[in-house]
Amino acid sequence: MNDFTKRIPDATVRRLSLYLRFLEDFGRSGVTSVASEALAERGGATAAQVRKDLSYLGSFGKRGLGYSVAELTGVLRGVLGLDSVWRVALLGAGRIGTALFEYEPFRARGFNITTVIDNDPCKVGSHLGDIRIRGEDELECALRDDAIDLVIVAVPAVVAQGLVDRVVTAGIKAILNYAPTQLRLPDDVALRNVSMLVELESLSHALTRRTG
Amino acid sequence: MNDFTKRIPDATVRRLSLYLRFLEDFGRSGVTSVASEALAERGGATAAQVRKDLSYLGSFGKRGLGYSVAELTGVLRGVLGLDSVWRVALLGAGRIGTALFEYEPFRARGFNITTVIDNDPCKVGSHLGDIRIRGEDELECALRDDAIDLVIVAVPAVVAQGLVDRVVTAGIKAILNYAPTQLRLPDDVALRNVSMLVELESLSHALTRRTG
Repeated sequence: MNDFTKRIPDATVRRLSLYLRFLEDFGRSGVTSVASEALAERGGATAAQVRKDLSYLGSFGKRGLGYSVAELTGVLRGVLGLDSVWRVALLGAGRIGTALFEYEPFRARGFNITTVIDNDPCKVGSHLGDIRIRGEDELECALRDDAIDLVIVAVPAVVAQGLVDRVVTAGIKAILNYAPTQLRLPDDVALRNVSMLVELESLSHALTRRTG
Repeated sequence: MNDFTKRIPDATVRRLSLYLRFLEDFGRSGVTSVASEALAERGGATAAQVRKDLSYLGSFGKRGLGYSVAELTGVLRGVLGLDSVWRVALLGAGRIGTALFEYEPFRARGFNITTVIDNDPCKVGSHLGDIRIRGEDELECALRDDAIDLVIVAVPAVVAQGLVDRVVTAGIKAILNYAPTQLRLPDDVALRNVSMLVELESLSHALTRRTG
């Protein structure tokens, strides 16, 4: 991994994810090179933004010829860590957790949910796909034995922080949080929040403002 | 709706959603007033940030006494548009769409999914909960007849823009997008994107950077 990738801003990383998606689509359609304008068009961004985002990755593309779809796809996969298989533990086997578990693109991208934890005694011991659901008392040993890299939190808000404290103590450095609460974490743990309600309420706020 | 609510920044609106969640928790625990410090503590923000966010709503709280939980809950519900029932159409009855449909907090917040559209002939005519799934050819008449306010897009990326163009032409002004694509929309349509993969890839980027 090149040293300059240490400095890519979060917003750029998110757009790189989108560009990768578009490049894969282009690749499947047999397109071998694309101009920044084509990526911008798909992404609702400007060509200048695309060029600036990709400049974090080094020097690509030839003036007038655009970017090689195969080359840029490979570089983006590397930068986004998709050349590795990541071992993921899912905390919470409720509706959200189950939908995430079954979401096929996660696995296709190398995010392999190997471990599922729930505190419901009726769920513990039953299976999600081919994974046996384990109880919360097994959290630490499961994270260790399954060599977990990344934890997805899909438990109710009230229990999230307590579980996450244990996850952090166990040495996990990346957490994807679906619980509707702001988690407190040490600075060296990467956290991303996905909220089902916050985005929806931001829209109802916009609608209210419109009709108010 | 007061005029000053027109100017609340997006990031603040998102935090207001979180504060509302915390206030409801406090209310259920029998707490009647809270200091900005308590909201900050729950939200991982600073008390100054909380006070600044709430200042957009007017003048609340008494120095030394904090905020009335009931009053602030009511104000936030109003600002976030949660005193209304919003009629929601779901485009796409796949795994994500089904999980969203079954996500109980949506309904509890007044987001009522009355309409489900899918293009799979095997799904059209069958039911999701008590809603009959309708075909894409019924999109325009369903949006009109069901008086839809807000559309959730949970279809594959390749078909999303085409469907959304029809949704916009039908007059819908708020779209929550789960499709992994950047939608192009007129400025007067509110759009929020929720990505399953972008956040996860942002974490694998962080892990790669760490170990690279």
